[in-house]
Parts: sequence; C-alpha cells; structure tokens
Amino acid sequence: MSDLEARLLEKIVGIRAIDCHSHVPAEAPHAKTLADLLGYHYYTELVHSAGMPADAMHSHISEADLIGKMVPRLETIDNTVQYSWLMEAARELFGFRPDRLTAGNWAELAQMVVEAARQEDRYRAVLAKANLEKVFLTNRFDEDLSGVDRAVFVPCLRTDDLVFELADPDVRRRLAEKTGSEIGSTEAVREAVRGLMRYFTQHGAGSAAISLPPDFTPGRPDEAAAGKALARALRGKDLSEHDSRHLAVFVFDAVTDACRQFHKPFQLMIGVLRNVYPAGVEGGHDLVSKSGGLVQYADLFRRYPEVDFTVSVLSLAWVHDLATFAWIFPNVKPSGHWWYLNVPVHIEYELRARLMAVPKVKLIGYYSDMYKVEFALPKFNMYRRVLARVLARDFVETGLMSEQQAVETATLLLRDNPKRIFGV
Amino acid sequence: MSDLEARLLEKIVGIRAIDCHSHVPAEAPHAKTLADLLGYHYYTELVHSAGMPADAMHSHISEADLIGKMVPRLETIDNTVQYSWLMEAARELFGFRPDRLTAGNWAELAQMVVEAARQEDRYRAVLAKANLEKVFLTNRFDEDLSGVDRAVFVPCLRTDDLVFELADPDVRRRLAEKTGSEIGSTEAVREAVRGLMRYFTQHGAGSAAISLPPDFTPGRPDEAAAGKALARALRGKDLSEHDSRHLAVFVFDAVTDACRQFHKPFQLMIGVLRNVYPAGVEGGHDLVSKSGGLVQYADLFRRYPEVDFTVSVLSLAWVHDLATFAWIFPNVKPSGHWWYLNVPVHIEYELRARLMAVPKVKLIGYYSDMYKVEFALPKFNMYRRVLARVLARDFVETGLMSEQQAVETATLLLRDNPKRIFGV
Amino acid sequence: MSDLEARLLEKIVGIRAIDCHSHVPAEAPHAKTLADLLGYHYYTELVHSAGMPADAMHSHISEADLIGKMVPRLETIDNTVQYSWLMEAARELFGFRPDRLTAGNWAELAQMVVEAARQEDRYRAVLAKANLEKVFLTNRFDEDLSGVDRAVFVPCLRTDDLVFELADPDVRRRLAEKTGSEIGSTEAVREAVRGLMRYFTQHGAGSAAISLPPDFTPGRPDEAAAGKALARALRGKDLSEHDSRHLAVFVFDAVTDACRQFHKPFQLMIGVLRNVYPAGVEGGHDLVSKSGGLVQYADLFRRYPEVDFTVSVLSLAWVHDLATFAWIFPNVKPSGHWWYLNVPVHIEYELRARLMAVPKVKLIGYYSDMYKVEFALPKFNMYRRVLARVLARDFVETGLMSEQQAVETATLLLRDNPKRIFGV
Repeated sequence: MSDLEARLLEKIVGIRAIDCHSHVPAEAPHAKTLADLLGYHYYTELVHSAGMPADAMHSHISEADLIGKMVPRLETIDNTVQYSWLMEAARELFGFRPDRLTAGNWAELAQMVVEAARQEDRYRAVLAKANLEKVFLTNRFDEDLSGVDRAVFVPCLRTDDLVFELADPDVRRRLAEKTGSEIGSTEAVREAVRGLMRYFTQHGAGSAAISLPPDFTPGRPDEAAAGKALARALRGKDLSEHDSRHLAVFVFDAVTDACRQFHKPFQLMIGVLRNVYPAGVEGGHDLVSKSGGLVQYADLFRRYPEVDFTVSVLSLAWVHDLATFAWIFPNVKPSGHWWYLNVPVHIEYELRARLMAVPKVKLIGYYSDMYKVEFALPKFNMYRRVLARVLARDFVETGLMSEQQAVETATLLLRDNPKRIFGV
Repeated sequence: MSDLEARLLEKIVGIRAIDCHSHVPAEAPHAKTLADLLGYHYYTELVHSAGMPADAMHSHISEADLIGKMVPRLETIDNTVQYSWLMEAARELFGFRPDRLTAGNWAELAQMVVEAARQEDRYRAVLAKANLEKVFLTNRFDEDLSGVDRAVFVPCLRTDDLVFELADPDVRRRLAEKTGSEIGSTEAVREAVRGLMRYFTQHGAGSAAISLPPDFTPGRPDEAAAGKALARALRGKDLSEHDSRHLAVFVFDAVTDACRQFHKPFQLMIGVLRNVYPAGVEGGHDLVSKSGGLVQYADLFRRYPEVDFTVSVLSLAWVHDLATFAWIFPNVKPSGHWWYLNVPVHIEYELRARLMAVPKVKLIGYYSDMYKVEFALPKFNMYRRVLARVLARDFVETGLMSEQQAVETATLLLRDNPKRIFGV
Repeated sequence: MSDLEARLLEKIVGIRAIDCHSHVPAEAPHAKTLADLLGYHYYTELVHSAGMPADAMHSHISEADLIGKMVPRLETIDNTVQYSWLMEAARELFGFRPDRLTAGNWAELAQMVVEAARQEDRYRAVLAKANLEKVFLTNRFDEDLSGVDRAVFVPCLRTDDLVFELADPDVRRRLAEKTGSEIGSTEAVREAVRGLMRYFTQHGAGSAAISLPPDFTPGRPDEAAAGKALARALRGKDLSEHDSRHLAVFVFDAVTDACRQFHKPFQLMIGVLRNVYPAGVEGGHDLVSKSGGLVQYADLFRRYPEVDFTVSVLSLAWVHDLATFAWIFPNVKPSGHWWYLNVPVHIEYELRARLMAVPKVKLIGYYSDMYKVEFALPKFNMYRRVLARVLARDFVETGLMSEQQAVETATLLLRDNPKRIFGV
C-alpha cells in the first residue's frame, strides 16, 4: 500500500457512514453466540460447497453441534474474503488474537462472544466501532416498528411478498390486518400500500425495497387484468403465469406510486434467481443469471421521474448497464455492491466505472446486507480499502483529484449521498 | 507513474495520430464560444443526470444563459473523466489555469475561447497541438464535400439514414437529388449507393460508417422482399416491422457491396439503443444493451472477405466477442473505444485483451468521436496514458516487448494501422 | 515484479503440476519438426487473421513451405501472448537465443527441434522441464489405450461425437466394434457407454470430457423420444433438430450416469460455436458466443450430486456465472482458463474472482489444452506468473494470507486438487 493510499484510507475510515441496506433484526441486532456468527449463510454455504453435508447445518441442531462440525471445515474456505470478515470481526470486536479459527481455539472466541453480548447496548458499541451512524433494516410489511431503536436503525419497507405473493391468502390476510381494510380490488391494494408507506414513513422509514428476478419487466400495469387475477385469487383459484405477472406488475406499480407520493426512494435489487439449489443450506439456494438487462426498466425510469431508484444488480454481466443508465437517467442511483458482486475484484471494477463516468452526487457507496451488526465493520472496511485504492491510483495519482477532493468524494459515497437521497 | 511508463508516454505523445471517427463539422470545426464546449452532450447529459432540468439546456436558450446555469452544477460531475477533458482542453489549448471551472472564473475562459477562435486556421493549430495528422468527419450522404479542408479532414459516408430510413420520402428525395436518379427499385438503390461512394471516394473519403442497434442482424438480402417493401414505401404506405427489416438488410448489403467495389472499409459501430430516454437533453437519449452478440455478423464477415470491417461495440458485455472475432476473422479490425466504453477502466481492459491476442497490425487504437476539435487533445491524451500504462506493465515489464518494440506497437495503433487500413 | 511476487513465483514454479486437459497424441507427444510447433492452430489462425491466405497453410503443403511462408509473417503477431509461448519454448527447451523468429534464423531452430526430437523419451524430459507430473490426454472413445505411457499420461474419454453424432452410422459402427454390442436401443447405448467407461477406467482414465455449444441445455432425458430418434437414425433417416436434441440430451445423460457409476468427474467445456468461419485454417473455425448461461446446467448439477463437474467456460460473459455456481454447488469445480479466455488479462480477472469467493479446495488452477508437450512449459509459466501476482497483490500484501499460506494455496490449485478430484 502506498503512503498516499494509507493516508486516504485513514481519512476514509474516519467518515461516519450510513448503511442503507441490512437484514439486522431490530429485536436481536447483535450476536449472542458464536453460532450467530458462523450461522451466517456465507459460512454454511461455503463449507457445504466445500463438501460438508447440508443437513449437518440444519437449524434444529444445537449450536455446539453446529460449531463443532463447521470449525474443522473452515480451513477449506480460509482463502475467501468472507472468511476474512469473520476473522476481522473476531479480532476487532472481541479481541480474538489467532488469525485462523480452529478446533483448538474456537471455544475461546465462543466465550468472548457470550460475554460481549451481555454488555448494555452492545449493538450500539459494535456500530460505533464500525463507524456507522445509521443502519437500515429490511422490515416485513406488517412488522410493528414501535420498538425500533431509531437512534441507530432506519426502517425500510420490504415489498417482495406484496409484489410476488399477493395471491397467497396469508399475505392478503396480513395486509388486511395491518391496514384494517379488505384487499378486494386493485384500488384497495393501492390504498393498502399507501397505508403501509404512511405507517413506515411515520416511523422514520428511509425507503421501500425489493429483490427482483432477472426476467422481471415492470411496465404500465393493465389494471383490469390485474383485477381479474386478484379476483381469481380471492376465489381461491391458482393463478396462471400470465395472471401472476399482471398482478406482480400492478403491485410493483402501486409500490412505486406510493414511493412517489411519500417522496421515498425505491431500492431495486435486480437479478436474483431463487431456489436454483434447493438442497443447499438455508440462505444458500439462490443464484445469479446473466440474462436480461436494465433496458427492461427503462419504461419505469421514464414514468417515475420523481422517484429515486437506488439500484443494485447481481450479475457482473449487468454492471455496465447500470453504470450507463445511471449516467443518463437522473433518477437512477447505483447503490453498493450486492451479494455475488460484493467481492473486492468486482467492487473494484464497478467502483472505477461508476466514479469515472457517473456524477459523484448520485453514488451510494456501500451497504452491508448483514444479518448481525458484527459484520458491519469487516464489510465496510473491505469496501473502504478498495475505495482508498481506487481513489489513490485512478484519481489522485493521475491528477484528476487532489487528496482533499478524494476524501470529499469518499464522504459523498459513504455518508452525504445516502443521507440526502434517503432523507435521514 | 513509473519511469518506464513516463518514458513510453513521452514517446507515444510524439506519435502523429490519425483520428478515424469524429463528428466535427467541416464548416465550423472549432469552438467559437465556451458554450460550444459546454454544450457537448457529455456535459449537458451529466449535469442533467445530476439533477439539472433538461429544459434549462434547450438549444433555444442563449449561450450566456446556458453557461450561467451549467457552471454552478459542474461541481456535481467533477469526478468524471469527461470533466477532466474539459479542464485539460481549457489548460492546454487556452492557457486557463484554475483546475475547476466556477461561477467566479468562467468568464475568463469564455473570453479566452472567443479570442482564440479569431486566430486564422485555429482548428489546424488545435489539431497540431493534439498531434493529430488527420481527422475523419462523418458526413451526411448528400453533403457537399467540395469545401472540406482535406489537408486535415477526411470525409466519411454516414449511412444510418440510408439503411434505416429509406422508407422516408425525404431521405429518398435527398438521395435522388444527390445522385440524379429516381429511387424506384432495389437496383436503383444499389446504383445510387455506388454513386454516393464514387462521389465520396473522389473527394478523398476514407470509409463508410454506420451505427447499429444491438439486435440488428445483417444477412444475405431477400431482394424481392426488399423490393416489395420499397414499392410500398413509394406508394406512401407505412412499412411493417418485417418490411422495414428486409429493406434495412438490403440497403446495408448495398452499402457493404459498394465498400467492396471501391475498396473502402466499413466502420460498424454496434449496440446503440436509440431514444431510451426521450426526456433527456439533446444527444443524451440513447443507451446501451447487453443483449445480442457479434455472431449476428458472422455471415456478413464470411460473405465479404474483401471488405475491412472496423468494428466498435458499445457494451462491455460485447468486448470479448469483438476481441475473439478479430482474432479469427482477417477482415474484422477492432477500432477504438466507443462512447459508453470510452472510459479508462473499460479502455484498459479492452486494450489489454486486444494487445494480448489480436495481431498488432489489425488494431485501430483510438478515435475521438468529438464534435469540436478542442476535444481531440484531452481524449487522445487519455488514451495515450492508458496505452503507456498497459504497454509498460503488461508488455515491457514482463519481458514480452522491449521499450522500442512497445513504441513501434503504439505507432501502429495510433498512426500506421489507420493509415494503411483506410488508405489515407 | 516485487520481491514478494518473485519469491512466490519461484516457489510456485517448484510445484510439480498436474495438467488435466490436453490434446497430446500418446503416440507422438513431442515435436519432431519446427512445423509441429508452428502448425499449432494459434499461429496459423493468427497469421491468417493478419492477412496470410488460409490455403498457404493447408496440411498438404510441405513443412519447409509452411515454415517459409509463415515465418516472415510472424512479425505481425509478435505482440500476442501466443507468440511469447513459441519463443519461451524455443529458448527454454531448445536453447534458441534470439527473441524473435525470422527468415534469417528459423533454420537454426528447425535444426535444434529435429535434433532434440531424437533424444530418447524426449517428451518425458520436456514435461520434467515444465515440472508437470501428469498430463491428461483426450482420447477418441474407440482408441486403443494399451500403449499409453501411463507414467506421465492419463487417458480421458472424449464424448463429443457420442453425444452429438450418434446418428452418424460411422460413430455407431465404431461404438459397436469397440464395445462388441449392437447399438439398437437407448438401453444398448447406456450399456455401451458404461462399457467404454469401464475400459477407460481400467486403463487409468481420470475423467470423461466434452465441449458444448452455448445453447446446449442438459435435462432429464425423454428416453422414449430419444429411442424414436435413434430408431429413425437406424433406418437411415435424417433427424430433425428436435430429434437430434432429444438424442443428444439422452446420450449426455448416459455419459453423466456412467461417470456417477465409475466415480469419475465429467469435464464440461461450455460455450464453443463450431464452424463460424469455415474458410479459416484448420483449428481456426470456431468462436465464442456470449448468449446462454450456466443456469442451463442447474438441473444437471442438482440431479447428479455425486458427480464432480469440472467446468470451463469460453466467454468472458460467463465468468461470473461460473464463479457463483461454484460458490454454491458442491459438485461444480471451476477448471483452468480455456482457449479464448486463456489470455493473462482474463485469467487474472477470473482467478481473482475464484480465489476470493470459492473454497480453495475446489479450484483446478490450470490445464494446457496443448497438442504437443512443448507448450506445457510456456503455458503453465504464463499461468504461474499470473498466480504469483494475484497471490502477492490480493492476498499476501492485503494480509489475507501469509506467504506460506499463499504457496499452500498454489499447491492446491496446481497439484493437490486435480490429484484428489481426478483420483490420479
């Protein structure tokens, strides 16, 4: 690392960041046991990929059993960046010294986790150590938000089940219960979605969010066709693929329109293929597809100029699409580096492409996507290192930016842009 | 920058280059006002992307108004490589000292531009400073080429409207007027296209050129079907998509065949999606699509072995296709780095891929695609820096080339290959 | 090159490697003449791509004629990495000193090749110099394996013609002759394939292998439809595309099932478009397509969890698909860098992506794909240099691995993983 890169990194680590997407549960944000850390799907899916049977990691087995089985296998994945997150968290948050976790030393870390978990407001200390100011949650639409610690957490309305599973009676029941109105028509759906958005914004929500399959194509909804599909569902009938698509496009539009009315961004996470590997471990069933492209969303971006779409894609094949659409459409804001692209080699390429040709005020640098707050520190630090390197090599060393300008740009990406775009 | 890289860059800057693709207007090649520079679509589209209303930049507003509105917004895009082109041109061509353009200093630069514009043969001085020997134009098919300054400019027959808009009566009228013959049959079209090519070559043209959508698939034309489509158009009827495709494939073939007869290359610029964002600023409506692939052109490359196709693609997803087709087909020559790929991170990847596996005599390094000659210097310098870095790191440092061989290779890319391939 | 990188490279060069895919002919593994080296399709196709007529390199011309015509053209491709293989082989294996091959010096190298070829067990010495322990062959299904020198060579059952050309009477005849049973039904095909696999494993085979077009989609075979297609073929009828597909999917399944029964991996080499350029030189007709994706194979990976699929892809557009499928599916093992991706810039990207997010025990680093053993040394050395650089920069310098761990990881990729996975 050059001196310049080291100086930039030190400054960048000092920027108090906003994490606009996570799956932290508000009621249990920090790890209580080592199993809470090792149970993260990256570790279970990678050791399974390396040969450990999936059923050895089923959720019904005891924590000691899980750890005892996984730890000897960790050696097979100790090259991965995901493994490095675990060890950096262990070292920085718990004071664990060894650089590898082994059958001989895991008990010590397990004890450290249990003890640390007893500290008052442990999650706040963990986030402070990661230098995060706010962390977005991803809440079920009928979640009670009254207990959320809004000093550090920002609710976010997850809309996957609304958009793709409204034909499910249970989803409709939950929606009716939450909003107090029957879901008997498309207009009722629009009203219910507005009701949800009202509730969420009243509780400080920063946005709505959804993950989307690679072939989804939003468009101007055919409200009559969606209404018929809904009516079929209300009569307990199965929906054809055609019906399901009409209904999904309609609900997606209703959510987008609610974002417009409540002046909230819509986080689009595009490209996940669900359940490609059903025999895998929990959280390790989904994959990526290179098919499709962002042009599927052009009509949406045109119809809703008032809505900020913060967009992540899942396939490397889509990365150039995103950088170019963000270059042209004012309401397309590239956001972070999602899941299968959340690896330094891909982050580096994508970050260079964005920083070189998209207005700096539009870039949301990073989010953690974590399930426990302990992963904020190593994930954000991974990103910070890539950011420091890219700013040093491609911008400061080439004379495009001064050091001061580079730090200001980093501040936009990590803090000022998400604060402004999400209104936090 | 290493000493080696610096030495190579110095030598590379000294190579007098050929710019085989630009949109410079022969009658007004250099900027007369600062608005001629700031009005470049990169600046208007990027500040619009960063939030400035598109109608604030409509062509009917005054130049002072345009500048006054844009300058305060430039800060939002000062991270981009496009912004760096502006500042490098300001510094190197006008002697403007500040490293950012602001509300407080733009009047000074505006004055400098106006004064410099009054110099005799200003555009020649600007091109000499950029160390370019020749710049290709992109001429409308019915343009009068008699006044072109052929000491520095090379005409090029743009064929987009011929291929894709021959059903438009105005296009046929212009074609009939230019060639003196009625466009009443496919044979008449072939004859007219040959007439254009004759006229252009008599006026020193280097090639024909066309930009193509990602789904275009040339093939052996169905001349009967094309004739029927043309007949429909002559009767004033609208063409079906099917008819339009037959007509386009036919005219494309007529142009290719004329290239063959007149021994001229055909510049194919593949992958632009037109008018994806119609509400954008002028020149900022078009985007890219990752769909399709170069295999669509395999039949064309096979049928015209005598024609050199100098090919650019617009999507990163197509970059490997191009490098491999150029590796195998003698008549496929990769050309420059077009538009949404004209960003250092992409240039670097594409250049490394081409230099490592395509014969060096086939590579056309770069073209400016500029609308005013002032952008030749910063754009070519951007490329020269990437070229110096790639030659230093991947070729000289690894022992694959001596320094002298690296400079010779750069000379091929920047000068000797375009001279030989285009016959200038 | 940094000191660290140099130290790592020295250690990596010292790892005795396994080459799991080549086209070396067991009966003539080393070059007898310079034409055996220059006739490698990379050189003939590249000089043809650079302008030399293909018929100047037809196999019926004399070797002296071939060399005499090719050598003066080599200058046009001396930038390519393929050219560097030739010169590194000439230098390291024959003691040839010049760094370019010219009309003035090729006779000297030609003489050196002829003399070296006379050494006893020359191919063993060449492989020892390349520091390879074993080299896989790619054998026709009816090849006699009794004479293979199993001290260095490992047979591998090539299944392309079985899967895609079983409708050809000659293929069925060869299969019947080899297995001693008539190919009259799908069950007979399964039995014959098992017979082949039995014979191959008895002769030390490491795996089956196949190259696949980008649109191939394996699936659960419709055995009745495949049977009808086979019956049509037996009656001498041409097969429809539909029939051919059913038959191919069926035979592919039979091969996969035989791999399962004999506990052998199946090498899938996905993405080649055959005969895109039929007028090219021998071996230079095929190309790549960015279409399709690895999701086409998800069903296969699910149905055969016991079979290791060692997978290579041919298009850069598929690289992320492969890294992610290998991250999730236990039986998907990324293997080497194939053909149009076997270029340092692509190897580097792909290697970084794999090493950062796929368990290290699953990665097969490299194979040569060579036709003569002389190319093992320069090809493996090219890979070793990229590997040393990636381990140095992305892993040791960043603190993710110690130097010792980096060397251990390299040992897995080059030696221990292929030994374990292929059981050699």
